Amino acid sequence: MPLKLNWGLVGGGETSQIGSAHRIGARLDGHFELVAGALDIDPVRAREFAVRLGVPEDRAYGDWREMLGREKGLPTYGRLDLVTVATPNSTHHEISKAFLEAGFHVLCEKPLTMTLADGEDLVRTARDADRILAVNYGYSGYPMVRQARSMVRDGKLGRIRIVVAEFSHGSHADAAVADNPSVRWRYDPEQTGVSSVLADAGLHALHMACFVIGQQVTRVSADFVSVIESRELEDDALLALRFAGGATGRLWTSAVAVGQQHGLNLRVFGELGGLRWVQEHPNQLYWTPLGKPTRTLERGDVRLSEEARLATRITIGHAEGFPGAIANIYSNLAETIRARNEGRAPHPAATWYPAGEEGLQTLAVVHAAARSARKGGTWVEP
Amino acid sequence: MPLKLNWGLVGGGETSQIGSAHRIGARLDGHFELVAGALDIDPVRAREFAVRLGVPEDRAYGDWREMLGREKGLPTYGRLDLVTVATPNSTHHEISKAFLEAGFHVLCEKPLTMTLADGEDLVRTARDADRILAVNYGYSGYPMVRQARSMVRDGKLGRIRIVVAEFSHGSHADAAVADNPSVRWRYDPEQTGVSSVLADAGLHALHMACFVIGQQVTRVSADFVSVIESRELEDDALLALRFAGGATGRLWTSAVAVGQQHGLNLRVFGELGGLRWVQEHPNQLYWTPLGKPTRTLERGDVRLSEEARLATRITIGHAEGFPGAIANIYSNLAETIRARNEGRAPHPAATWYPAGEEGLQTLAVVHAAARSARKGGTWVEP
Amino acid sequence: MPLKLNWGLVGGGETSQIGSAHRIGARLDGHFELVAGALDIDPVRAREFAVRLGVPEDRAYGDWREMLGREKGLPTYGRLDLVTVATPNSTHHEISKAFLEAGFHVLCEKPLTMTLADGEDLVRTARDADRILAVNYGYSGYPMVRQARSMVRDGKLGRIRIVVAEFSHGSHADAAVADNPSVRWRYDPEQTGVSSVLADAGLHALHMACFVIGQQVTRVSADFVSVIESRELEDDALLALRFAGGATGRLWTSAVAVGQQHGLNLRVFGELGGLRWVQEHPNQLYWTPLGKPTRTLERGDVRLSEEARLATRITIGHAEGFPGAIANIYSNLAETIRARNEGRAPHPAATWYPAGEEGLQTLAVVHAAARSARKGGTWVEP
Amino acid sequence: MPLKLNWGLVGGGETSQIGSAHRIGARLDGHFELVAGALDIDPVRAREFAVRLGVPEDRAYGDWREMLGREKGLPTYGRLDLVTVATPNSTHHEISKAFLEAGFHVLCEKPLTMTLADGEDLVRTARDADRILAVNYGYSGYPMVRQARSMVRDGKLGRIRIVVAEFSHGSHADAAVADNPSVRWRYDPEQTGVSSVLADAGLHALHMACFVIGQQVTRVSADFVSVIESRELEDDALLALRFAGGATGRLWTSAVAVGQQHGLNLRVFGELGGLRWVQEHPNQLYWTPLGKPTRTLERGDVRLSEEARLATRITIGHAEGFPGAIANIYSNLAETIRARNEGRAPHPAATWYPAGEEGLQTLAVVHAAARSARKGGTWVEP
Repeated sequence: MPLKLNWGLVGGGETSQIGSAHRIGARLDGHFELVAGALDIDPVRAREFAVRLGVPEDRAYGDWREMLGREKGLPTYGRLDLVTVATPNSTHHEISKAFLEAGFHVLCEKPLTMTLADGEDLVRTARDADRILAVNYGYSGYPMVRQARSMVRDGKLGRIRIVVAEFSHGSHADAAVADNPSVRWRYDPEQTGVSSVLADAGLHALHMACFVIGQQVTRVSADFVSVIESRELEDDALLALRFAGGATGRLWTSAVAVGQQHGLNLRVFGELGGLRWVQEHPNQLYWTPLGKPTRTLERGDVRLSEEARLATRITIGHAEGFPGAIANIYSNLAETIRARNEGRAPHPAATWYPAGEEGLQTLAVVHAAARSARKGGTWVEP
Repeated sequence: MPLKLNWGLVGGGETSQIGSAHRIGARLDGHFELVAGALDIDPVRAREFAVRLGVPEDRAYGDWREMLGREKGLPTYGRLDLVTVATPNSTHHEISKAFLEAGFHVLCEKPLTMTLADGEDLVRTARDADRILAVNYGYSGYPMVRQARSMVRDGKLGRIRIVVAEFSHGSHADAAVADNPSVRWRYDPEQTGVSSVLADAGLHALHMACFVIGQQVTRVSADFVSVIESRELEDDALLALRFAGGATGRLWTSAVAVGQQHGLNLRVFGELGGLRWVQEHPNQLYWTPLGKPTRTLERGDVRLSEEARLATRITIGHAEGFPGAIANIYSNLAETIRARNEGRAPHPAATWYPAGEEGLQTLAVVHAAARSARKGGTWVEP
Repeated sequence: MPLKLNWGLVGGGETSQIGSAHRIGARLDGHFELVAGALDIDPVRAREFAVRLGVPEDRAYGDWREMLGREKGLPTYGRLDLVTVATPNSTHHEISKAFLEAGFHVLCEKPLTMTLADGEDLVRTARDADRILAVNYGYSGYPMVRQARSMVRDGKLGRIRIVVAEFSHGSHADAAVADNPSVRWRYDPEQTGVSSVLADAGLHALHMACFVIGQQVTRVSADFVSVIESRELEDDALLALRFAGGATGRLWTSAVAVGQQHGLNLRVFGELGGLRWVQEHPNQLYWTPLGKPTRTLERGDVRLSEEARLATRITIGHAEGFPGAIANIYSNLAETIRARNEGRAPHPAATWYPAGEEGLQTLAVVHAAARSARKGGTWVEP
Repeated sequence: MPLKLNWGLVGGGETSQIGSAHRIGARLDGHFELVAGALDIDPVRAREFAVRLGVPEDRAYGDWREMLGREKGLPTYGRLDLVTVATPNSTHHEISKAFLEAGFHVLCEKPLTMTLADGEDLVRTARDADRILAVNYGYSGYPMVRQARSMVRDGKLGRIRIVVAEFSHGSHADAAVADNPSVRWRYDPEQTGVSSVLADAGLHALHMACFVIGQQVTRVSADFVSVIESRELEDDALLALRFAGGATGRLWTSAVAVGQQHGLNLRVFGELGGLRWVQEHPNQLYWTPLGKPTRTLERGDVRLSEEARLATRITIGHAEGFPGAIANIYSNLAETIRARNEGRAPHPAATWYPAGEEGLQTLAVVHAAARSARKGGTWVEP
């Protein structure tokens, strides 16, 4: 293993779930060392928490501007190899843009930005600066999701006909706490934008569908409802989709599905076979070749695709989970960054991190779905 | 157990799957004895098969008109208590109507009729004749489906918010045999009407949703696709629904979902909890009270609702299957017919056979969905 | 379908679970008509219940001796083709023997007899009288159990190495009701014999292991415990087994396994592959060829063995359950009886009812296990 | 988070699965930094790999004696806080003993030692030196295993009656490669000792049973078989067990169970309820209170025990896997070591690493089982 890469984190403070997930993912395979951070909106807490995480005092910052100001002046040796932006959604654009323009590679939390214009601007900025812009669709790091993508790419399913994606949970089902601030802001257009549950949870299902079948959405018809009436934004949505390669999509997402914990599932049906994958039991992929019994493919099987094999670190039959999926995003970024640093091509099977373009394309579908829902299900182009 | 009821069967010949299911269902609990039949379009085969099934020779008919002619003249003792119509869809209306008008109770296969006008006419005919008209939504006979309906009725889930229904299989996925006559007619509007997979498979999911939540559909937005392009009718459909009681529905049905055998599933989400049921493993119902762990309810548990307990015949932990579900429809009809014959009220927990009205209402939704799909997903009222 | 066979039932009264299962099984495929019975220890209830089931009054008997006396004198036409004995265990030998000696075919409930000597006598009696003696190991009627047996027979698994069988439930786990008469008699050696849970539940797992791998037990080492100390007989048992064909067995059975409803499961491991089957979800069989992914075989698949296909009556993907399994035993008996009556060989794929010899062999293993347990796990021959 | 602890690793070279698991586990929560190592039997590879892992050159050793010699002389600041021994089984005793005597805390791979005498010696050495000796039963780190242990401890199941443990896989089922050196040594008593699959896989199931019910084994009766006859040691074993607190155990372990990947499962049955846990889907624990429906407890649920909550790092519904389980062992050791360093009591809910005594006790059961198997299943005390 080569020397660790230098990693900086903006946001993701002590009480942030996603901050913890990023730190575990960055650490798991030993590719990144956290050396700089502006981890909290409160400067004192930000510095104090960074130091506790082992960040040197002079790189434990009170806010991201301070961090950017000093870090961009550091010499090549010691400079940050990657900056993760895990701040509130409305700040993704400004912060990511600033770091990209200063020459840093950026991994941004999803959704990439609040508006499409900002998303386009960010993707353009990265391109102009020739910097990596990635977006954290972490579930695409699961080995068996990558196996599914490999199988579609390799033609095992033939032309893809139907893709069925779900991401439904029941976290916002309790009407008694619907007005608690921790829940309410998610349904406030001022803070959340044009969509709530689709932009938050459904977005992962949407990206996974695109990621696995390798096609972008060309048209969408959507139905949004707020089953808790006080909500301005949808807590349940249904989408019909058309993809560029001819596939049809069905996507259901919900925040009021009591009994579903974190129900992210994908089914893909092609001319030659079908696939099924369930996030809560991510180590299996069910494959039915046309006219044959269903087969259970297991993570860790030596016969899986190279991409799936590279994305796993323990032997078959053990459970591997979400921390490993996030770590795969980080490992892919590490390989890509090292290859750039070393002036070589990255290992082709180790570059499947979700790019900024994917963040933008999926965001465009959310916006189109919101328009379609407002127009009574009319088909709309993203 | 009282004397067996006299049962007549029209259609359901030797090679018919559904005929076999009706005979098993009618026989399983010993309520009905097959005493008359016109079982095949070929008069010779019709008579010959009936006799082999034990029907007396003088009641083994060559066609349904002959059967009707003679049976309606029989004295009360020995007269048919129920006639099942299991002929091709396009004949349901004419045959059922004739038997109803002659004073027989009728159980008609689904779909009730080809057109809405015919369906309305049939329901009216039954009402005017004061005869029972039932439609064979057999899956509604499963004990745990009835348990779900009981729990919704009893308020265990509070107001219903979202119902998610699926019926997807892969039986018509193989493009190589798409033009075989046994498959092709299903996608021919001349023979099949306005819809294929929705009217055939999806209809069961639709009825189950209505049956369990006790609400009718008021609006629908649909997306139909023919993934095998030569098909004029849809082989995959997605529906967004609104119900009279305020619930929202999501329904996906497909005939090209390779790897799904007979994927009829239902999920119901209310203010106070959620339910999940899967046809391929029908003996369990998963119930999640709001904020509590999911509980596995088992068929045969003595604490289930009276309707669920009456719909089962073996102890907890044994598997019970589809023949029992159909038998429950027949048992409910037997109780209702006997109660009429005896001038008493039927046992209130034994009358959940699907009525003709339900056949008509669900048919109306299919027609509305076909209109919506043609109009690009516009919301349409059934 | 030929004319129905005449069926007589001894025991299996109105409140008996097993009586209901036999009537459903005999009726399901329409092979048998109940025409005579002595259904209850109380003569009045016996006659009254038989008449309600449609038995002619002159063949509704008050006890089995009366039934035997009159039935054996009837002319060939109208004579009973099969007598089912579903009385308390201690009477199996006497009643079955009497009917066999009078020339009737007999299906006896399990366990075949209380003592080995009685079992041997019964098997000998049947042989001498050239009558069918079957024993109701009903779970062996499940289609996918038969598929497993076919696959072993056809060499798909190679030489069988290990078979793991379980039948565990929690029905007798509640110490608070352990002394209720309905539970207590099961642990009383006077009424139950040398073994409780092994002779009651474990016996099915034992038979299934033998049935599927086609080998008999040659040696057994057993551990019996009574976790509720007041019980004289075991409520939990573990057996190590050796089979005549070289296989090794592991069998666990329990009546105190809270949370297991009716946990009858079988796993078979051979040189070339493994199989797994679970009674509570009986429509699937999981097959892993050596070095290949696991495949899910589905009941109703046209590629299954002829024995499995003959044992099913509805299409793939529907659930089929325990009533169908029992009906398969009855259908196999019907075919065998008809072939005898017609002087022809029975259809070779329709004769897999469990024979009296199987009832005797499994009983011998239970007795051997009880001896082994008393001797501290010493290996014992049945 | 306080400063990282200094971690040394002996064994676990580049191609070692278990070495990778230790490094991930030590790294996942950021408690340990690998600062010294003797990672390979080949001194050149050992040093080279250590340096690639980021170990300073002067602490990248060619063998463990060199490592011990230099490390024990280092000043308190910079000294190793923990040494993990992941070398071949036959060297565990010598190496662990040497490090313990030199004052280091030791985490030893399982099995603790080859002989009981060595195991006793190691435990005594640790006690005399007042050093931590832990053994890597990594599966005991799964959150839901800890939840199970908490529930038993808290009386949720009442007195424990039966515990059923399995660890079966099919990795050594292929006779064609049974003589390959990579498989063969496992069945060679010279290299492996008195037991193969029980000492290797079954040991984990045994420890898990003891760990969850909090009882030690007092007696064992065992059956060992070598289904591949050329093997001197068993590839399949069945154990009956008695525990100090009155529980009875059933344990099956196999290396020839084709179709099982890594089948480590546990079921616990007590007076008041039952539990079920399956390693391949480790995020759920199934709990059936006596007389109530089964409940699915989910990792990450805020209502779980403090021990279970402390052992998880991502929110409910995400999968978490084996790397997290190993990391929990390391985190528990970190807390215990820090508490010692700081002269305080460790957090009581963060000390459930498996102690050396547990390694010794389980080893004693393996040896007793081997004796019992040789004596034809006689009951033997460990």
